[in-house]
Amino acid sequence: MPPRSIGFIGLGVMGKPMAKNLLAAGYDLTVHSRSPGPVDELVAGGARRAPSAAACAAGQDVVILMLPDSPDSELVMLGPSGVLEADPLPALVVDMSSIQPGVSRRIAARAEAGGLPFVDAPVSGGEPGAIAGELAIMAGGPADAFEVLGPLFEVLGKSAVLCGPAGAGGAVKLANQMIVAANIQAVGEALLFAARSGLDPRVVVKAIRGGLAGSAVLDAKAPKMIAGDWAPGFRLELHLKDLDNALAAAREASAPVPVTTVVRQFVKTLVENGHAAEDHAAIARYGEQIAGSTIAP
Amino acid sequence: MPPRSIGFIGLGVMGKPMAKNLLAAGYDLTVHSRSPGPVDELVAGGARRAPSAAACAAGQDVVILMLPDSPDSELVMLGPSGVLEADPLPALVVDMSSIQPGVSRRIAARAEAGGLPFVDAPVSGGEPGAIAGELAIMAGGPADAFEVLGPLFEVLGKSAVLCGPAGAGGAVKLANQMIVAANIQAVGEALLFAARSGLDPRVVVKAIRGGLAGSAVLDAKAPKMIAGDWAPGFRLELHLKDLDNALAAAREASAPVPVTTVVRQFVKTLVENGHAAEDHAAIARYGEQIAGSTIAP
Repeated sequence: MPPRSIGFIGLGVMGKPMAKNLLAAGYDLTVHSRSPGPVDELVAGGARRAPSAAACAAGQDVVILMLPDSPDSELVMLGPSGVLEADPLPALVVDMSSIQPGVSRRIAARAEAGGLPFVDAPVSGGEPGAIAGELAIMAGGPADAFEVLGPLFEVLGKSAVLCGPAGAGGAVKLANQMIVAANIQAVGEALLFAARSGLDPRVVVKAIRGGLAGSAVLDAKAPKMIAGDWAPGFRLELHLKDLDNALAAAREASAPVPVTTVVRQFVKTLVENGHAAEDHAAIARYGEQIAGSTIAP
Repeated sequence: MPPRSIGFIGLGVMGKPMAKNLLAAGYDLTVHSRSPGPVDELVAGGARRAPSAAACAAGQDVVILMLPDSPDSELVMLGPSGVLEADPLPALVVDMSSIQPGVSRRIAARAEAGGLPFVDAPVSGGEPGAIAGELAIMAGGPADAFEVLGPLFEVLGKSAVLCGPAGAGGAVKLANQMIVAANIQAVGEALLFAARSGLDPRVVVKAIRGGLAGSAVLDAKAPKMIAGDWAPGFRLELHLKDLDNALAAAREASAPVPVTTVVRQFVKTLVENGHAAEDHAAIARYGEQIAGSTIAP
């Protein structure tokens, strides 16, 4: 039987539009979140309010988590009044937060020991993708649980790929974020070089986007860099978190990732210098930290 | 009047298929190249053989150069029996080699002082693009000269963008190569991390290619990395040359390019360790130099 009742925990920038899409698709939704505003908004739309994670999860067909970072997932799953204390337990939990794969594996082991199947399924696509229901979903967990989640993933995303056991989704998300960050930095370096060489960076983008330098990053982020438009989108401080998780996971896997290490250092510097809440396109502002160099004229 | 007669100098991996396409399009072609094999091939197809660059250039509507590096362009243009000694001078020269923008500017100044308009127009797309006539052409020079070259560029490429004065094409090509190299390295790091984490890199590519990590590099190069297929394509030693030219030009423009600098160092190490003639997808083999780490199982 396909799932009908959903407990949704975490109504932030990503969680709120995702929960709204599930509500609009006719699911029976119960919500829980730290800030009351988004909860009120969902309740006004027909969702039920729950006073704790345990209460939100109790007896649901599926519980979805969309939380900021690893400690939040651990607390909501394993802490007091957490999902594992729900009575009765839900049938299935899917954590769509972007957290450390090792933490997902640990949570999965605890959940499954308690008889609760667990899937990690972080997403790519940012707030626009969440609103449009066009996220790319990278999942890890048991195949039958992934199967059950199919109809929900169709509401939330444009693709969902099962990548391995629990934690695999998170590892793939980190791989994704490594590529995105390095490519933003590379586009930033290329456009800064072009601008300092007296070229119009808009013409440069036009000349190269059809070739091997073409990418989703070039199309989505170069216009923001050129306009000096740093409104998020995806906040730089969240990308720093992802890169820190990536470096930790790469160390654990004994995988050398030198460019990721360099880019993370620039991102860290930018976050510490007042750019935390800007879009991650602001990775291209690395030059301002070094030499007062800007792409925009 | 559109150009009919072409002198083509440099029948290497790129030049030979480009010259063939112009011949097939009905242009009156005279060729000159160091190695006799490709010259014989073009002559068998109807081209004329010229004993020197000057002889190849004399009286042509357009002279096209496609040479390995900056010193070659300087020698062929400015050296003994070079294009500037052609009698009569050709009407227009376009250098489609990938060389230092500063050298193109110097050659352009000398050519124009001698009454010969000069355009630099390096390309992206590699041997497959040259064969298919689907190169991305990045040009620098006078607008009227660029206009004259339009019909030729339509035979050779799928896009041609005038980016500024002479040298601008080369600067944009270097910007292109910076992005391509860094993105190959980033994809390599992400797939190495994924493989060392126990994931199937093919599934990873499938899961991320529709999102912000998607790129022409991911589509074209990840399958080669995963298969351990290093057949060129575009040789790593040529990408090293481009990165060295990029670093020199970036220094000249006072543009800090830290990731390009790091990637260039790995490329240099790989070229010195026997990978010079491999496809530039082999940038992903950086891990083998550090830790014996491979993406392929």
